[in-house]
Amino acid sequence: MKEKNMIFGLRSVIEAINAGKDIDKIFIRRELGGDLAKELFAKIRPLQIPVQRVPLEKLNRLTMKNHQGVIAFLSEITYQDITSIIPTLYEEGKTPFVVVLDGVTDVRNFGAIARSCECAGVDAILVPARGAAAANADAVKTSAGALHIIPVCRAENLVNAVKYLKDSGLKIVAVTEKTENLYSTEDYNAPLALVMGAEDEGISPEILRLCNTRVSIPVLGKIQSLNVSVAAGVLMYKVIENRVKN
Amino acid sequence: MKEKNMIFGLRSVIEAINAGKDIDKIFIRRELGGDLAKELFAKIRPLQIPVQRVPLEKLNRLTMKNHQGVIAFLSEITYQDITSIIPTLYEEGKTPFVVVLDGVTDVRNFGAIARSCECAGVDAILVPARGAAAANADAVKTSAGALHIIPVCRAENLVNAVKYLKDSGLKIVAVTEKTENLYSTEDYNAPLALVMGAEDEGISPEILRLCNTRVSIPVLGKIQSLNVSVAAGVLMYKVIENRVKN
Repeated sequence: MKEKNMIFGLRSVIEAINAGKDIDKIFIRRELGGDLAKELFAKIRPLQIPVQRVPLEKLNRLTMKNHQGVIAFLSEITYQDITSIIPTLYEEGKTPFVVVLDGVTDVRNFGAIARSCECAGVDAILVPARGAAAANADAVKTSAGALHIIPVCRAENLVNAVKYLKDSGLKIVAVTEKTENLYSTEDYNAPLALVMGAEDEGISPEILRLCNTRVSIPVLGKIQSLNVSVAAGVLMYKVIENRVKN
Repeated sequence: MKEKNMIFGLRSVIEAINAGKDIDKIFIRRELGGDLAKELFAKIRPLQIPVQRVPLEKLNRLTMKNHQGVIAFLSEITYQDITSIIPTLYEEGKTPFVVVLDGVTDVRNFGAIARSCECAGVDAILVPARGAAAANADAVKTSAGALHIIPVCRAENLVNAVKYLKDSGLKIVAVTEKTENLYSTEDYNAPLALVMGAEDEGISPEILRLCNTRVSIPVLGKIQSLNVSVAAGVLMYKVIENRVKN
């Protein structure tokens, strides 16, 4: 983590939040208390900023300067709000196309998927506030800059956010091995959200239950699954092909 | 580079070659001469092992031990011969499907493409002996082990190797932005070689001239191209879809 993305000290972090800076996460010393700390907590809560309680040594390893028990990591990107993007798309007469990343934690996979999304004309990427890859410098580099172009939305509760998409008329399509329904036989002309799961565990059961349909990519060899960024690319381009034909 | 993959000393490297070990490349000190060095050069020449002449300091940085001006890097994989694979595929009644990587130098891209190839049932990967990503531990890891399963063939002269594929009845398909022919409208039922180009420069002009047809993946956003491993995945799965339907 480059130092330019770190802000430390109670007052500095509160000021960064007041100034509307997008923060990826905040490390707070386990025992931290006091009035200023309370003020910080009050600021953090409604903003869905992931907070991690860490031992003092972890903070000391990150900076030798006076961090006062608080280090915030500025995001490389500005997060957007999915609930203001979807209505705008409909108003513009577009057919929304969202990619949901349920627990993709590898920064390079996140970057690679963002690059493909931008190339495929995806309208927004939806990620959970916790348990997602950071939108850090490595992610932006792997994305070839796409993370600065395509809207990325962070949901405090991903289940609720996916419900919102469903209620907004999007067909929720899970890309998962847990089906025999081939991706190439599905219809993608409706407003659409493609859900990609975590590298190891796939899509979480709560999200999977919400999906309208499941599709799988056939695997002909001995290795059981494609890399998630390749799988996402294959699906996105199937959607494009499908929509262009119709 | 982990030390376990390094062999150094004139006699040790000659013995490794005699034992049939696959070597990714050999660093040789610029000024190296003598009878044993001559013996080494005579061994290297017919085996298409890439040799790099380097200053003494470079070798000293790699090992403090007595390297005698020679360090060889063992490959993680065993390379195979494309001219023995293709006839076997025909004899088995299969429709050959080869992926040619013309200058893909990023180790992770190489690994990711190998993983997709294995999943898509590709018969072999063809790479040039020089100017290709090393099949090192990082590549194998990114490939999820696919590099130990799928045959990888190394060509001293990639142009001649692609000519061989063409003469063997394979349709040579270049995946390139330099065409308006969409990948999704092409027919992939014939014996096939998909050619993917380098991350920056694309496919070299000599190889491009050899190709029977060119196909492109449409890009709808501002970023001009997909990551090469995603593009390869999109194409491979289009081939699978095409072949399953017919």
